[in-house]
Amino acid sequence: MATTRGTRAAKVPTASRLVWEPLDGSLVRRPDQLAVEEPLEVRLSRMEATGIGSLQVLTVTMRTPGHDFELAAGWLLSEGVIEAPEEIRAIRYCTDPDLDGGQRFNVVTGDLTAHAIERHIAAGARSRLSVTASSCGVCGTASIEALTERGFGAVAGSAVFELEDVLGWPDLLRAEGQSGFAATGGLHAAGLISAGGELLVAREDIGRHNAVDKVIGWAVLEAVEGRMSLPLADCGLVVSGRTSFEIVQKALAAGIPVVAAVSAASSLAARLADEHGLTLLGFVRGSRCTVYSHPERLRAGTA
Amino acid sequence: MATTRGTRAAKVPTASRLVWEPLDGSLVRRPDQLAVEEPLEVRLSRMEATGIGSLQVLTVTMRTPGHDFELAAGWLLSEGVIEAPEEIRAIRYCTDPDLDGGQRFNVVTGDLTAHAIERHIAAGARSRLSVTASSCGVCGTASIEALTERGFGAVAGSAVFELEDVLGWPDLLRAEGQSGFAATGGLHAAGLISAGGELLVAREDIGRHNAVDKVIGWAVLEAVEGRMSLPLADCGLVVSGRTSFEIVQKALAAGIPVVAAVSAASSLAARLADEHGLTLLGFVRGSRCTVYSHPERLRAGTA
Repeated sequence: MATTRGTRAAKVPTASRLVWEPLDGSLVRRPDQLAVEEPLEVRLSRMEATGIGSLQVLTVTMRTPGHDFELAAGWLLSEGVIEAPEEIRAIRYCTDPDLDGGQRFNVVTGDLTAHAIERHIAAGARSRLSVTASSCGVCGTASIEALTERGFGAVAGSAVFELEDVLGWPDLLRAEGQSGFAATGGLHAAGLISAGGELLVAREDIGRHNAVDKVIGWAVLEAVEGRMSLPLADCGLVVSGRTSFEIVQKALAAGIPVVAAVSAASSLAARLADEHGLTLLGFVRGSRCTVYSHPERLRAGTA
Repeated sequence: MATTRGTRAAKVPTASRLVWEPLDGSLVRRPDQLAVEEPLEVRLSRMEATGIGSLQVLTVTMRTPGHDFELAAGWLLSEGVIEAPEEIRAIRYCTDPDLDGGQRFNVVTGDLTAHAIERHIAAGARSRLSVTASSCGVCGTASIEALTERGFGAVAGSAVFELEDVLGWPDLLRAEGQSGFAATGGLHAAGLISAGGELLVAREDIGRHNAVDKVIGWAVLEAVEGRMSLPLADCGLVVSGRTSFEIVQKALAAGIPVVAAVSAASSLAARLADEHGLTLLGFVRGSRCTVYSHPERLRAGTA
């Protein structure tokens, strides 16, 4: 599986379009660049487990094309379809001859180990059962408990981060990883920061959650190649926008202990971070920030 | 069904939390207000069509509690589960005695006409068939065509809007409908503007798409009561954030001809607006804006 080592941040495609803007009482045309949005279908190849080369559509997400294998790998991990990078045998674009060229790059198939496929099928059967048999569990507490049942424990490791460094993460992301946003104003970004404060990878996407999946998926694919290992217990995640339950869930799936966001966190994001030992920061802007949970992992003041 | 007429904008719940912030080299505690995020499960009562009081879970969305019937009604319309307000017989909170009080308000059940339920069941069977039988249709063009197949035509009516007025919509939304954002910094907002330039309703939510569903759902429930009618051919939609395919889809489902957003539009949002005759504006800030499609519905200059 090819992953690009060395390109920390990659250019995203933008779409050219003629738009109008008001000027002196009339609307005049000018060229503009838009963030690209296209659907991506992620399929699971169930060949091995079922013996009948069947494919299951796992999800269709609207995303910005590029780094689609990373997106799929990150999504598979954060949704619990895989529990470790080694469960990925291959990720590939669709080779269905019925699809034309453009569409072929909007369908990604994951080949997983038989064990992962069997677990996924069993989980699907369980969840179908629980929908009809029981109606409990629709609240924030239940959402958090469901993750615990899926094996999400407390964040591992005892890494401590200099607050000063963490406050600089959004600037690092903006400087090195947000060229698409600069061109279009319409893209979210996420980045993975090493223990040494280096921006390991940055990705932009029309979807907040997709940008995070791509960054985590990059680490998953690096781990498949033996160049990294999960959990990412000494890394930090920086995101350009807000933090919801889903973003914290993704960080926890990868074992990332610190998440720093430029905007606000939701109530449920903060509670999930609380319960799983994740340090969550919001409104990280210049020398200011809001720490929602587990400040003990941050070293403040001049050491 | 009770809807609140008169309260154009309603306060959203916020969650109090002690947070930390850096001050003189250490982290100090202070109280903060967070946007509330909780899951909402939307169920369809299939009693009439199937004869066996079965319930189908349609979706679970993370949302800010409040105006949940509107959220469900708007979602049902924009996803095509209902084609007209009259197909809603009732929307109610769960009365399942197994659920405790808090959870009961996280489950909403839609009672639809038998006709709507049968159409929904048939569409489900069709889509299950197409997933296994064919792999075509995963691209932006196919996404747009799928809406056309679902009966989305061009926006009706010949309403023309003063550009000057449209440029003022975000200020109107901020002034009257974004108290939750002011308190938390973590909420999206949407508003419906009448032909006369009045803010008919504004809703805030942790999810961009939920805020739009609540606003459209408000109109659907008003229509159920005979106080409005769809399509909303002389109304405008204003949103606090970005515009993706999904937001334009929702506006089209309600027949809204103009969407004005504070931030960027995606490539697919602009294409969908193009093809369905919707006037789409982005970066609406002060006297500036970007018009992506169908400027003919805007009157610029001093009349």
